[in-house]
Amino acid sequence: MEQQYALGIDIGGTNTVYGLVDRKGRIIEQGAIPTKGYNSALQYVKAIAKELQPIIKKVKRQNIKGIGMGAPSANYYTGEIVNAPNLDWQGVIPITKMLREESGLEVVLTNDANAAAIGEMQYGAAKGMKDFIMLTLGTGLGTGIVANGQLIYGHDGFAGEVGHVIAIRDGRDCNCGRRGCLERYASATGVAMTAEKWLDVRTDKSLLRDFKGKITSKTVYDIALTGDKLALEVFDYTGMILGQTLADIVAVTSPEAIVFFGGLAKAGDLLLKPTKKHMEQNLLHLYKGKVSFLHSQLPDTEAAILGASALVW
Amino acid sequence: MEQQYALGIDIGGTNTVYGLVDRKGRIIEQGAIPTKGYNSALQYVKAIAKELQPIIKKVKRQNIKGIGMGAPSANYYTGEIVNAPNLDWQGVIPITKMLREESGLEVVLTNDANAAAIGEMQYGAAKGMKDFIMLTLGTGLGTGIVANGQLIYGHDGFAGEVGHVIAIRDGRDCNCGRRGCLERYASATGVAMTAEKWLDVRTDKSLLRDFKGKITSKTVYDIALTGDKLALEVFDYTGMILGQTLADIVAVTSPEAIVFFGGLAKAGDLLLKPTKKHMEQNLLHLYKGKVSFLHSQLPDTEAAILGASALVW
Repeated sequence: MEQQYALGIDIGGTNTVYGLVDRKGRIIEQGAIPTKGYNSALQYVKAIAKELQPIIKKVKRQNIKGIGMGAPSANYYTGEIVNAPNLDWQGVIPITKMLREESGLEVVLTNDANAAAIGEMQYGAAKGMKDFIMLTLGTGLGTGIVANGQLIYGHDGFAGEVGHVIAIRDGRDCNCGRRGCLERYASATGVAMTAEKWLDVRTDKSLLRDFKGKITSKTVYDIALTGDKLALEVFDYTGMILGQTLADIVAVTSPEAIVFFGGLAKAGDLLLKPTKKHMEQNLLHLYKGKVSFLHSQLPDTEAAILGASALVW
Repeated sequence: MEQQYALGIDIGGTNTVYGLVDRKGRIIEQGAIPTKGYNSALQYVKAIAKELQPIIKKVKRQNIKGIGMGAPSANYYTGEIVNAPNLDWQGVIPITKMLREESGLEVVLTNDANAAAIGEMQYGAAKGMKDFIMLTLGTGLGTGIVANGQLIYGHDGFAGEVGHVIAIRDGRDCNCGRRGCLERYASATGVAMTAEKWLDVRTDKSLLRDFKGKITSKTVYDIALTGDKLALEVFDYTGMILGQTLADIVAVTSPEAIVFFGGLAKAGDLLLKPTKKHMEQNLLHLYKGKVSFLHSQLPDTEAAILGASALVW
């Protein structure tokens, strides 16, 4: 029997990465095109289809099982991208239908946080797990929740928005129009915001002051590594908010592990140690000491492609 | 082919009810024995097995597919009851193993809130649903969460403790040793407690004052029906706390419906109207207007037996 392949496409706000993946999760070919700068979603889809053509030719169409796509605000059931705040195309984009017509291949879509969970379950840190939560800490906070070995999509395809669980009632304004959402605290954006806010109200010395007004989570990380008290406290606070909320989420699905992924997850122990501490302190006794914290085992550049392609199998 | 049957047993704090159920969910025979008053768990199990004997004989053993049991603090995976605060037997009780030996039939165990969800999915308001939450509002608050048509047990069998999600940080002391758990507010106990606490700090007139010190949720309900302002506000407040927390839980599993069951659920619109209102106000826009509130469609006395027996199929 000839080798079977899947194509994985990850649609990011800036770039779209794609790759040809074999059943063992090896990326045979990969590439990228910009996501922005097209007149319409259809033009964008035509551009992707054109990029994929030489790859499809190379391994022969009949050896490709299909295309898996990860995208923000994507709906698994309908195959549509719906009002994605970070993409150029507003309204409802039936992207799987469009790409199916352009490529002649079957197309499956899921949201990017879910794609990451699937990739991790198939090839990464959650291999063999039936109950875990994938937490993507980037600009926002995305979650893919797996129970009984299956991703939880919910009745409408939109389950797993833990970033919009209220961490602090009447807390920080969120883009979603509500207040106190977890991702306003536990994300790269949240970490930078905490640092900026604290500089306004606190008077203690900190290297962070030199960056006032243009602090990023990377700034806080770099300065925390020098032992700066305020920067370290920012991570402790972020970990406290995240740990408290995770303790509640554990009481819903009782996962074996939480897998951390995304730019802010690279802060490593600076963030995960306080997060673990506060989660454990807040867990119902039943769950204490049972939930592992794991780092994603997929390389950044490949995770998105692998996750998307794994949808196909 | 001869008719197939399942036995359903529900172990309550006071009474154990059991019944013989056919595949269509008809209860052919039923009975009850006290749960308390035995020297050991084994004696209790022997007593149940003896009760079941005439029923088993009547329809012939080979026509009974097995026994399904619902119990507090029960673990589906291990078949054990673990440190149940409301039962006489502490520690780990391997009750499925014990009943299997005494009855000669296969035995499956789940916790009572999960059994209710299974019963409702098989025979009641959640028939045909793949994603819903069963909320049992009694002395405490129990939840059975169904996603992708399957109950979420979690990796350890203890998923679905929404009653112990923190509704109010540093709020009321809970039996679990933590503070502010949802079930300290949204349960029969919680409603009574809110009324008692408010009478201490408020000065407005209320019929509730006549019952100070011995208020139950039924008292609050009866008095609310007369239009008593304080009693009505107790339900509004309970609905607010419950609605806010449910809005967060919806963001995890995105259910099609929440099915209400248990003594306090009988308060009907008095409780469910404010709960719905506050849930909707607090939902992420994605979920607004999508989650139905349903009443259990199983008769009280039968729900527990049906739910437990449905485990067997």
